[in-house]
Amino acid sequence: LHDLEVYERHYGGHAAPELLDDAVYGLTELHRAEVRGADVVANPGCFPTAAMLALAPLARAGLIADVIVDAKTGVSGAGRQATETTHFVTADENVNAYGLPVHRHVAEMDQELAALGAPVAATFVPHLVPLDQGELVSCYVTPAREASAEEVRALFEDAYADEPFVELAERPPGVREVRDTNLCRISTHADPRTGRVMAFAAIDNLWKGTASQAVQNLNLMFGRPEEEGIA
Amino acid sequence: LHDLEVYERHYGGHAAPELLDDAVYGLTELHRAEVRGADVVANPGCFPTAAMLALAPLARAGLIADVIVDAKTGVSGAGRQATETTHFVTADENVNAYGLPVHRHVAEMDQELAALGAPVAATFVPHLVPLDQGELVSCYVTPAREASAEEVRALFEDAYADEPFVELAERPPGVREVRDTNLCRISTHADPRTGRVMAFAAIDNLWKGTASQAVQNLNLMFGRPEEEGIA
Amino acid sequence: LHDLEVYERHYGGHAAPELLDDAVYGLTELHRAEVRGADVVANPGCFPTAAMLALAPLARAGLIADVIVDAKTGVSGAGRQATETTHFVTADENVNAYGLPVHRHVAEMDQELAALGAPVAATFVPHLVPLDQGELVSCYVTPAREASAEEVRALFEDAYADEPFVELAERPPGVREVRDTNLCRISTHADPRTGRVMAFAAIDNLWKGTASQAVQNLNLMFGRPEEEGIA
Amino acid sequence: LHDLEVYERHYGGHAAPELLDDAVYGLTELHRAEVRGADVVANPGCFPTAAMLALAPLARAGLIADVIVDAKTGVSGAGRQATETTHFVTADENVNAYGLPVHRHVAEMDQELAALGAPVAATFVPHLVPLDQGELVSCYVTPAREASAEEVRALFEDAYADEPFVELAERPPGVREVRDTNLCRISTHADPRTGRVMAFAAIDNLWKGTASQAVQNLNLMFGRPEEEGIA
Repeated sequence: LHDLEVYERHYGGHAAPELLDDAVYGLTELHRAEVRGADVVANPGCFPTAAMLALAPLARAGLIADVIVDAKTGVSGAGRQATETTHFVTADENVNAYGLPVHRHVAEMDQELAALGAPVAATFVPHLVPLDQGELVSCYVTPAREASAEEVRALFEDAYADEPFVELAERPPGVREVRDTNLCRISTHADPRTGRVMAFAAIDNLWKGTASQAVQNLNLMFGRPEEEGIA
Repeated sequence: LHDLEVYERHYGGHAAPELLDDAVYGLTELHRAEVRGADVVANPGCFPTAAMLALAPLARAGLIADVIVDAKTGVSGAGRQATETTHFVTADENVNAYGLPVHRHVAEMDQELAALGAPVAATFVPHLVPLDQGELVSCYVTPAREASAEEVRALFEDAYADEPFVELAERPPGVREVRDTNLCRISTHADPRTGRVMAFAAIDNLWKGTASQAVQNLNLMFGRPEEEGIA
Repeated sequence: LHDLEVYERHYGGHAAPELLDDAVYGLTELHRAEVRGADVVANPGCFPTAAMLALAPLARAGLIADVIVDAKTGVSGAGRQATETTHFVTADENVNAYGLPVHRHVAEMDQELAALGAPVAATFVPHLVPLDQGELVSCYVTPAREASAEEVRALFEDAYADEPFVELAERPPGVREVRDTNLCRISTHADPRTGRVMAFAAIDNLWKGTASQAVQNLNLMFGRPEEEGIA
Repeated sequence: LHDLEVYERHYGGHAAPELLDDAVYGLTELHRAEVRGADVVANPGCFPTAAMLALAPLARAGLIADVIVDAKTGVSGAGRQATETTHFVTADENVNAYGLPVHRHVAEMDQELAALGAPVAATFVPHLVPLDQGELVSCYVTPAREASAEEVRALFEDAYADEPFVELAERPPGVREVRDTNLCRISTHADPRTGRVMAFAAIDNLWKGTASQAVQNLNLMFGRPEEEGIA
């Protein structure tokens, strides 16, 4: 987050405000050039990672007039602390939304969307599902103009053709398919009935959502092969 | 579904087309008077049950300009048949969307929404989550005009004050809370940042979504107390 | 537990030692007559409940020379407290033994076995499995003399023919079959190769293992029909 | 299995009976020297792998007078086929024994135990638990003579000191700890009250129980470092 005021509204204060100006947003696939020369990299949250990879090609094409991100996360995404929420007997056989009406990760998404050409206020709602690792974001875009499934698909193919850690799938991806990997798997859809454009992205929140993406960035910062140690 | 043509597009043909004109749509809370005098009641699908209970008060108030329904269902909602999809090792530790781009249940929702005063084409996407019973629908409404959280809440309180099987909750409901019951538990929210109105509804797909709602309707048809045998 | 010294060794001290002499052990099927006239009933732990129902007919027949009870319990059997052990991310996709080398419930089992005619020191090891409600005990008996599957089965049929809450099954019972009920479902087996006699008993630890068995006893104490409110 | 008659009783016939004489039993830690020179290696089943690693040091020391192996396996251990048993709604929130009274894997265990110096007829009962990968065996040994926890522990330390894929643990191992690895983690216990000796071993049935153990053997057969490609 570049804007200190927004940061303070969502997080209460920053430990090192003087670093904010220099920090590069470490969503590798969208900021590779900046990460390469960076001294300080802010690793993105797990939700923004999946959401931005699912939305960036649409944002850059000027296609996003409005967007809803409905996320589903395993319990490790809700923290290691032993609480009522993370107790097995609460989480097992359950699914529920949380963080309403406004989850703090939305600030990160709005900033990134605006930077990519989509100055919208996103709606973002995470849900807790009974699994340990894994995160799925379901993105519902009201397009600024008509767009076919083929056109949408082409935008993603262009954007991610050379990305080692982004895969495009025909069918909606399941989080199991990317477990224990640095992969983000994405499917795209358009509904001719409603005009709605949809993108679904699955990651492992403990890997691409956190640890292995950090390694991916460190590899870049130190001039190592990007995939070293994670593929 | 009243419209035979729409039925055939989604289901391929009806076993008793002559009954379609007489059949009453058995979503009890919305059609109680008609169910009471009916000879034939068509039990609603589990997704439309939860979605319509979450949307009816908004539809009647003319508040729905557009709507997205993101549903999460346990594996029993995906059928008793032993398939690759319902194999434990496929479903466990997984979550994925299915039925894209257009799930057949959307026809039922569109028909009901139109009848209630919201002639929109809904976007509906179900997701499979690793639990056995339970269904959550997350409804994202673009309102036709500004609406506060208080106004929205009041609409639901008015609509469901006397309903024995609909409960309003302050916090987003979890499906565990309604397991093995005929209850539908709903929370409503409004985000002043985006203007978005949201409603979340949890049911047990094997109870309110199927069997116990059928009993609720039979009780009405035969003049028995509505709650007999299910509460 | 009737023996204060044993109680203190396992539990550290009793809140009302003067009641120990009067207290009746509330495993209904084994102590119905005493429960009927009792002022104080000590409800059995969930493990001893299942284990004793699986072993009593063998103990009474003088068949138990030695016995191992390997128990599997859902996480609710491990307490409502939010701990490292009960955190979803610890318990999910896991199974492990605990309470080694000697779990405190074994004192209850030894006392009951001796009272029924089997003065042995049982081996009892509980395991945590990733489900919320349910308990299975697998009992491996070294018989004092040869016993066929048919003879064993007949002992159980005699013992439980009139019991409303004990069911004999041909196949090993699963805990799902008794979820949310006061039932104990038992299968018995004999392996001619080894001479071993085996009994498997499934209960819901929150029902027959705790709450509904307490109701069953209260019904008896107050002269009500035993099944009132729980079947 | 070296004995064709036993094989036929359990499996109905062998595809290549002429290979039986040459085949080496590929439980690497127990047969490393033979695997090294072998042309044909029979990979052990997942249950015998865990059970034999938990029992071999006791068998060699002449300590096993009798033994019960109570196993718990995830659903992948029950086959990839979509059946009633492996349906999510059957397996979820369930646990049950199967394969009674005699599971075919017991023949493999008896053969190995006899070869190591313990000519006993083992009792082996597998249970299905609701997780995908992972297998725990709980071994209850009636010792031929008294043995302390320390003596037992020393036997295992001697046996496995140099083994890269066997780890001894103080606390009973959970299957999660070895998921996606070729490790077998074992704890040992002795109960002075009963004299019983116990060993618990956890493996990943898809790794050490199948695929990665096969690689471990292939590495040996072809003179490669044993850990190549699996650690």
